[in-house]
Amino acid sequence: MIVDVSKKILIVGLGLLGGSYARVLKRFGFHISAITKEQSSIDYALNEGMIDEGTTHLDERIIGEADLVIFALYPHIFIEWIEKNQKLLKSGAIITDVTGVKRSIVYKIQDMLRDDVEFIAAHPMAGREVSGVENSTDKMFAGANYIVTPTDKNSPEAINTCLELGRLLGFSNVTTLSPEEHDEMIGFLSQLTHCIAITLMTCNDKENMEKFTGDSFRDLTRIARINDLMWSELFIANKDALLSQMDMFINKFNELKAMLEAEDIDSMREMMRHSTKRRALFDKK
Amino acid sequence: MIVDVSKKILIVGLGLLGGSYARVLKRFGFHISAITKEQSSIDYALNEGMIDEGTTHLDERIIGEADLVIFALYPHIFIEWIEKNQKLLKSGAIITDVTGVKRSIVYKIQDMLRDDVEFIAAHPMAGREVSGVENSTDKMFAGANYIVTPTDKNSPEAINTCLELGRLLGFSNVTTLSPEEHDEMIGFLSQLTHCIAITLMTCNDKENMEKFTGDSFRDLTRIARINDLMWSELFIANKDALLSQMDMFINKFNELKAMLEAEDIDSMREMMRHSTKRRALFDKK
Repeated sequence: MIVDVSKKILIVGLGLLGGSYARVLKRFGFHISAITKEQSSIDYALNEGMIDEGTTHLDERIIGEADLVIFALYPHIFIEWIEKNQKLLKSGAIITDVTGVKRSIVYKIQDMLRDDVEFIAAHPMAGREVSGVENSTDKMFAGANYIVTPTDKNSPEAINTCLELGRLLGFSNVTTLSPEEHDEMIGFLSQLTHCIAITLMTCNDKENMEKFTGDSFRDLTRIARINDLMWSELFIANKDALLSQMDMFINKFNELKAMLEAEDIDSMREMMRHSTKRRALFDKK
Repeated sequence: MIVDVSKKILIVGLGLLGGSYARVLKRFGFHISAITKEQSSIDYALNEGMIDEGTTHLDERIIGEADLVIFALYPHIFIEWIEKNQKLLKSGAIITDVTGVKRSIVYKIQDMLRDDVEFIAAHPMAGREVSGVENSTDKMFAGANYIVTPTDKNSPEAINTCLELGRLLGFSNVTTLSPEEHDEMIGFLSQLTHCIAITLMTCNDKENMEKFTGDSFRDLTRIARINDLMWSELFIANKDALLSQMDMFINKFNELKAMLEAEDIDSMREMMRHSTKRRALFDKK
């Protein structure tokens, strides 16, 4: 379906991600419409030629004409939107999302959704430390991962459409995981790393340390500049998986601490060699 | 003294750091000699024009002629060298180092050193994930910190010589701290960050995660590729300061974990806003 550029795509939520989607997809020739909160975002996107039309209202024609609807909203707002407005969706439409957690979203949306509309969930693993449509870019997805998380309720057609969308957007690695696998993996690779970064950034309020800060501290705290509204919601939406990753981290950290207390240099070196060897796997290919 | 290029500089330990020092200082016209373990390092440095002469032996003439001796060795090897060979140093020579911890080195060396030779300690906060003279570069010090850690035993002349050395090498920020202030600061900014990185890298051995890894995990584990011999020695040499920084981190991490368990979104958001605000201080100027 998606490769047919006569289809109409609606983006709900025109921020950094929604805007970046619009920029890339418009270039392929799709008809792109947008619904978002602020008129200034619509004005900006129209002016940049990123969308064909847009509105801050629930425009029944725009919603009813869309073959593919991409929701780039906070999780609870996405769920509310579907609850209230799913009656406006076109029969046969496919809807997808960008939400960073999956179990708490996918089943809820699929359970409540009309039978003639299909929700196939996806997580584009891309972001920046800035937000808003004004910071959107068509270069955000190169080198990044796009994960589609189908369930038993999804059709092969919708899954393929969503995979195709990821490739069109320019993601380097487009794959599928179950919602459960996704949430465990993201709990470790993304959420735990953010927990660590904000902890490191706030555990020591000594002054003037920035004068002596080198690259390693800067690297570990880059993501400590964080959208508090979004991440607190994502953490809670993945609470059990994240808590278990936090425990795994604390246990290993305490092992290292015990080695240091005991001046057990052999065990410390063994852990460091393991770390060095394992890190090599994660070099960018 | 140092600005007088007729003075002779000896570098003991011609690895990544010692080699990078040689590259930069040679260009100012100083006579640079080197003593190191491997003949291949001497051959490489001579071939590159980084040093005037070098040897793998304790050459009494070379050591006895040096006005400034820079020790770029592991801490315990540096201490052993001084114990055994300080009799060979020129009367009036100034010696300095590159060691990443200070309290356990500075007082020991100053206490054992001859009265007519002065040790002024310094920590060049620069490194790479590679080692060896073949990876040395004259571009390693721009943007980095050089910290001189004087004690009551140091003369203003030696302190100024060492500060001047840091500036000549091209460090962007050349300052002084007491050995105690240095070790507390480095325990937090450098050693704790390495502890966190190697813990994150080794706490979860699940396979195939590299396929889904984004920039945040890569940023937090860049320094997880670590020289196990050097860092285990540095950790133990700063044990008390590092353990207290590890405790500070664990306490804050457990606070965050308790907030998540309680779904206390307000406290999580407050911590994230604090993190965001504090991180802004650490942006590169």
